[in-house]
Amino acid sequence: MIPGPIEFDPAVMRAMGAPTTSHVAPSFIESFGRSLEMMREVWMAPSGQPFIIAGTGTLAMDIAGANLTEPGDKVLVVSTGYFGERYADLLKRYGAEVTVLKAETGGIVSLEAIEIELKKGTYKLLTFTHVDTSTAVLVDPKPIGELGKKYGVLTILDGVCSVAGERIIQEEWGIDIALTASQKAIGVPPGLALLVVSKRAMETWRNRKTPVANYYADWGNWLPIMEAYEQRKPSYFGTPAVNLVAALEVSLGLILKEGMENRFNRHERTGRAFRAAIAAMGLGMVPLKEEYAANTLTAPRYPAGVEPAAFLKAMSSTDVIVAGGLLPEIKNEYFRVGHMGQVNRSDIVSTVCAVEVSLAACGHRCGPGAAISALMESY
Amino acid sequence: MIPGPIEFDPAVMRAMGAPTTSHVAPSFIESFGRSLEMMREVWMAPSGQPFIIAGTGTLAMDIAGANLTEPGDKVLVVSTGYFGERYADLLKRYGAEVTVLKAETGGIVSLEAIEIELKKGTYKLLTFTHVDTSTAVLVDPKPIGELGKKYGVLTILDGVCSVAGERIIQEEWGIDIALTASQKAIGVPPGLALLVVSKRAMETWRNRKTPVANYYADWGNWLPIMEAYEQRKPSYFGTPAVNLVAALEVSLGLILKEGMENRFNRHERTGRAFRAAIAAMGLGMVPLKEEYAANTLTAPRYPAGVEPAAFLKAMSSTDVIVAGGLLPEIKNEYFRVGHMGQVNRSDIVSTVCAVEVSLAACGHRCGPGAAISALMESY
Repeated sequence: MIPGPIEFDPAVMRAMGAPTTSHVAPSFIESFGRSLEMMREVWMAPSGQPFIIAGTGTLAMDIAGANLTEPGDKVLVVSTGYFGERYADLLKRYGAEVTVLKAETGGIVSLEAIEIELKKGTYKLLTFTHVDTSTAVLVDPKPIGELGKKYGVLTILDGVCSVAGERIIQEEWGIDIALTASQKAIGVPPGLALLVVSKRAMETWRNRKTPVANYYADWGNWLPIMEAYEQRKPSYFGTPAVNLVAALEVSLGLILKEGMENRFNRHERTGRAFRAAIAAMGLGMVPLKEEYAANTLTAPRYPAGVEPAAFLKAMSSTDVIVAGGLLPEIKNEYFRVGHMGQVNRSDIVSTVCAVEVSLAACGHRCGPGAAISALMESY
Repeated sequence: MIPGPIEFDPAVMRAMGAPTTSHVAPSFIESFGRSLEMMREVWMAPSGQPFIIAGTGTLAMDIAGANLTEPGDKVLVVSTGYFGERYADLLKRYGAEVTVLKAETGGIVSLEAIEIELKKGTYKLLTFTHVDTSTAVLVDPKPIGELGKKYGVLTILDGVCSVAGERIIQEEWGIDIALTASQKAIGVPPGLALLVVSKRAMETWRNRKTPVANYYADWGNWLPIMEAYEQRKPSYFGTPAVNLVAALEVSLGLILKEGMENRFNRHERTGRAFRAAIAAMGLGMVPLKEEYAANTLTAPRYPAGVEPAAFLKAMSSTDVIVAGGLLPEIKNEYFRVGHMGQVNRSDIVSTVCAVEVSLAACGHRCGPGAAISALMESY
């Protein structure tokens, strides 16, 4: 129940373990081509350009940043945790002049504050973290996409902990890049960076005055490959991670079979129910308001008197694995529970029981059955 | 029988398909730590710093290039094919002043020509391709390592098509970086960039005057992670490709169980025998001399009158898959056969038969049994 790598479907794992084909085998070209096509459906970006590249979620951030940034470009980073800070660091590497609008811990940056900056007319790019895995804070992408369109600023949605879990309608919302990694709500073991890029962002890249500063990330290397595979033609720049792409085809198929609206609703229901159970145990959360709380993971705060080490030790004798805190300034004040992908109600019930028992072992007791009752009422 | 992805051991594929653990699970920390330790043994670099990073072989080239190059640095690229040219392009991206010593097609660059350049005393870095996958040309790394030491120039061995197949004694030979990808002689599905870096090269990186221009590639992000996992401590920068690393642990174990010397000898024997069979069929090779011929793959030239498309079509009705030409200037004059990793004699016999039958279908006949006899005599 950590926020990635999540547990993967047996069919996905079978694709992982199946004999590796050539990267130009007809069956693999079909897998790759289908995966690109299905990404457009999952991202809801019918005219977007998908990229599937071997690497981590940070590589996906790097690809977006390096291709759209030229020295001297002004970038606005809307930061709601650890990964916003990372994006600011990364963009500076490419010569961007970065302004960070940093939310208070557990809070979000107001749209007014964002608009005040964009109104200055100097920004080329804005980045925001849809769900920051370090804080479980959820940001509403829709009005940010609208502000981006209004002021002619490109918007990058870091969706590592959101794509295929939280609601995203990339094209309708005017988001220029939505990026993620394979091991979260996409449901594939770690090793793939995934992005869908708008026509406007591709155009901005085509009109660059300087070469992309990062060789591996350069769309100039990868775009012909993505176009070739989608046209079911063999092509080569770097050898694709064959088994991961085969697994991606399976997982995207499962996601589309569930249906995006069903999937978003299921994640909302799961998140709401889990938060209700956590609240019934008397625990607070890192997100300051229910409306900022992500549905892909929850970041409960330890109640007074519970020592993190003792709690995590107690948890380790249950069947449920959770993650510790990640944001340096509050690292020892909270823990994190992922509930994305194929997590079902029985997983959530087990998790709530494990947390309840572990808290009790640390001296924090809640009313008998209160958490499970709260969970069931909201599910 | 393509030069990567090769066929992988069933035990490696079981690790690929096993349930994905957390990247900080004790069992995974042990897998990662053991893999780093075993890389030093496979590379024969007892004091080298290993890196395991999600990405392709080109990312491994990029990591080496980006970390060691600062704007204005002079770099000598010794090119024996497509991948030498790629390295020159890549290094220019980081502001290097690149001089390319380009071998004639199928030839190598003489040590004299390399020494004339290094003697100028202006170079910081030299790169060479141990085996260029586009030409099957093998370069002897030992004297290049010695020249590097003599003139104080760092040496990068692009070993994508050689590490764990061709003989490399990295530290003794004074090679500063030996890099590869997982899907070739290392025997793991594609998706990992692997490097071992000398103390001298790490020191050069530590003394940089400018930040590494590529964020994802920056050793500043990855070195603490590699050190932590080797000390069996959890750490995080990007989520490691858990299943690929688990598979790497299995494959490195199999490689060390065979023994490096046995493995090098087996690859030499296989390469020699396959080339003998190819010669007995009346086919030339892209490498101009036997001593330049790689043992991990062979690049036979089509005999007069055999059309590439017709040959590859005939091959496609056999059980053996080979690869077409890759070097643009001679793309239609040759094909490529990989014989690295766990390829055994029976695979080679099948391949020789398939090539013989396919050539016959294109009107090129050789003496009955000649190729197999030549193969068996050399094996």
